[in-house]
Amino acid sequence: MSERRLRIVGIPGSLRRASFNRGLLVAAQEVAPADVAIEILDLAPIPFYNADVEDLGLPEAVVELREQIANADALLLTVPEYNHSYTAVLKNALDWASRPRPLSALRQKPVALMGAGGGSGTMRAQLAIRPVLACNEAYVMPKPELYIVNAPQRFDAEGNLTDETVRETVRTIVVALAAWTRRLRAD
Amino acid sequence: MSERRLRIVGIPGSLRRASFNRGLLVAAQEVAPADVAIEILDLAPIPFYNADVEDLGLPEAVVELREQIANADALLLTVPEYNHSYTAVLKNALDWASRPRPLSALRQKPVALMGAGGGSGTMRAQLAIRPVLACNEAYVMPKPELYIVNAPQRFDAEGNLTDETVRETVRTIVVALAAWTRRLRAD
Amino acid sequence: MSERRLRIVGIPGSLRRASFNRGLLVAAQEVAPADVAIEILDLAPIPFYNADVEDLGLPEAVVELREQIANADALLLTVPEYNHSYTAVLKNALDWASRPRPLSALRQKPVALMGAGGGSGTMRAQLAIRPVLACNEAYVMPKPELYIVNAPQRFDAEGNLTDETVRETVRTIVVALAAWTRRLRAD
Amino acid sequence: MSERRLRIVGIPGSLRRASFNRGLLVAAQEVAPADVAIEILDLAPIPFYNADVEDLGLPEAVVELREQIANADALLLTVPEYNHSYTAVLKNALDWASRPRPLSALRQKPVALMGAGGGSGTMRAQLAIRPVLACNEAYVMPKPELYIVNAPQRFDAEGNLTDETVRETVRTIVVALAAWTRRLRAD
Repeated sequence: MSERRLRIVGIPGSLRRASFNRGLLVAAQEVAPADVAIEILDLAPIPFYNADVEDLGLPEAVVELREQIANADALLLTVPEYNHSYTAVLKNALDWASRPRPLSALRQKPVALMGAGGGSGTMRAQLAIRPVLACNEAYVMPKPELYIVNAPQRFDAEGNLTDETVRETVRTIVVALAAWTRRLRAD
Repeated sequence: MSERRLRIVGIPGSLRRASFNRGLLVAAQEVAPADVAIEILDLAPIPFYNADVEDLGLPEAVVELREQIANADALLLTVPEYNHSYTAVLKNALDWASRPRPLSALRQKPVALMGAGGGSGTMRAQLAIRPVLACNEAYVMPKPELYIVNAPQRFDAEGNLTDETVRETVRTIVVALAAWTRRLRAD
Repeated sequence: MSERRLRIVGIPGSLRRASFNRGLLVAAQEVAPADVAIEILDLAPIPFYNADVEDLGLPEAVVELREQIANADALLLTVPEYNHSYTAVLKNALDWASRPRPLSALRQKPVALMGAGGGSGTMRAQLAIRPVLACNEAYVMPKPELYIVNAPQRFDAEGNLTDETVRETVRTIVVALAAWTRRLRAD
Repeated sequence: MSERRLRIVGIPGSLRRASFNRGLLVAAQEVAPADVAIEILDLAPIPFYNADVEDLGLPEAVVELREQIANADALLLTVPEYNHSYTAVLKNALDWASRPRPLSALRQKPVALMGAGGGSGTMRAQLAIRPVLACNEAYVMPKPELYIVNAPQRFDAEGNLTDETVRETVRTIVVALAAWTRRLRAD
């Protein structure tokens, strides 16, 4: 198939250097098929959303975030679960990406979710983030789902995914997201 | 446009004869463009889901429900809000439609939601039903949304929609669902 | 302690005869301390909520349901998870109990939740039912939580709980609910 | 009544200087009965949660946040709605307050929610934040609820609440939270 390569932007919902959820995106990069390139965003420079700041002009890091999302064919989010819901870091990035209305960078963007955590496997965090994306008319891929439980047993201390079965499932998600993205394109 | 007519199945989340949410589906039938036919299901004959009943063989009304859903090009759900969430009648129909695994009749089915209610306009009920559909790999249209507030002022005592602005919005939903359905089809 | 015995009403969210979630309530009865009596409701006779039916007068089974709930000191709900959310049977019982406004039988009623299921342990169903209860001003005990995963390994074919560790946790829930109930009482 | 004054900590979910939701807390201060004092936190100095930062020792602003919450008799949260859910600023403060486990400053803390926004009146944001609090065993007051719609019509350009009916409802929330707090205290 001679279709052009898809550019997927990976958004890690955690700032921790050795984060499992960042490691999950690195694994996605490694297992992605040849027709998919995954770039991982760094959310550390993004300030908290503040309408007063927005009124003065979007901060440079936010302008860049919006452009990276707008230019992506699709998004791959990892959604850590803190206190039974998604993280502030992730929501903040999505809130900035949604501004200014009605020009959300998330509009009509295919999105897949995955996450690594404790007993819930980030199930509740993924459930909570879906309406945020739907509200922006993003196209969240409904299946397959990936909830990695007992993350500390599946990643090393540097946050590298060491579980081969999970790695295979990550590949399944990337392949499914590529198909979902191509399906939703008009061309 | 020579595309074949789309068959949309309307599922009302209320059993009340003069239900606003049933009336909303009737309005959808009336305003649907020529290339869309909407059939409204009657959920009254569907019993409560019970795995013991399922093991004895699906009840006739359930077999029919599953066939109607399976044969539809898309679903249009009206989602009344009781106690800040969706109704038992609606969830029950979806639970039966999802059985037996992995043969959910909802799989890869395009779906749109709308609802008429009080102050929330069924916002919370629609929020709560989305994961149920995503879990079945249904393709829930993210936008446009329709939340009709102050329903008693917009419907007559027989449940007929009398508000022309709302009627126009209902048409917008039907047209958007038809486009969403055609976009998701392989052909 | 000379306090009077607490009357807790157990509501099973499933109609299946050998339901794990019914079995969980039976286990709660068995392990309840001496100052707590648990009665388990049968939801089979409760029809679907329908405002037309309500207008003709509450069905006998519904009158009885409302009385049992109103007379209870507290409620113990088991919340099976179907399609990532709660069951129709459970929501239907709560909807009837909430009627007619503003006389919800659930008002200011202490409530605890537990559930047995597959990989999620009914986590998502319990999450989804909480707003339904809060909307009725029920006092849902926030902790401890009980999510029983891999239920088929912990119950026998008749739905009896066979896992002693889980049985002990069920006792913890009952004891905590009794304390929560006494704490919330004016006397 | 000779009970000691309650110390309620108000947490505004927005950083905007003239935020409606900050203004709502100022109104709560103004209408609070004599036995209640409300202090409003400033979340601007709180950095994003990052486990690497936590491992190096809690930042000074976080230590102070935790102390203010721990010393409060109750919390009053205003919950702006961005993209159909709560704000990053609010979730971030709660995530820090929950650390380190099992010493969440939110544990057994009475909490009330309110919010001002557009058409939803922050209904969805309040729905989404409740599980975050329950997860910390906070005692979220189930009723009364306050959802202020069309906020721009009810606040002036400096964020002062100008609607007398809403002001009266804010007082109702504060009085109810004080009663809820006294009810939950052992003494």
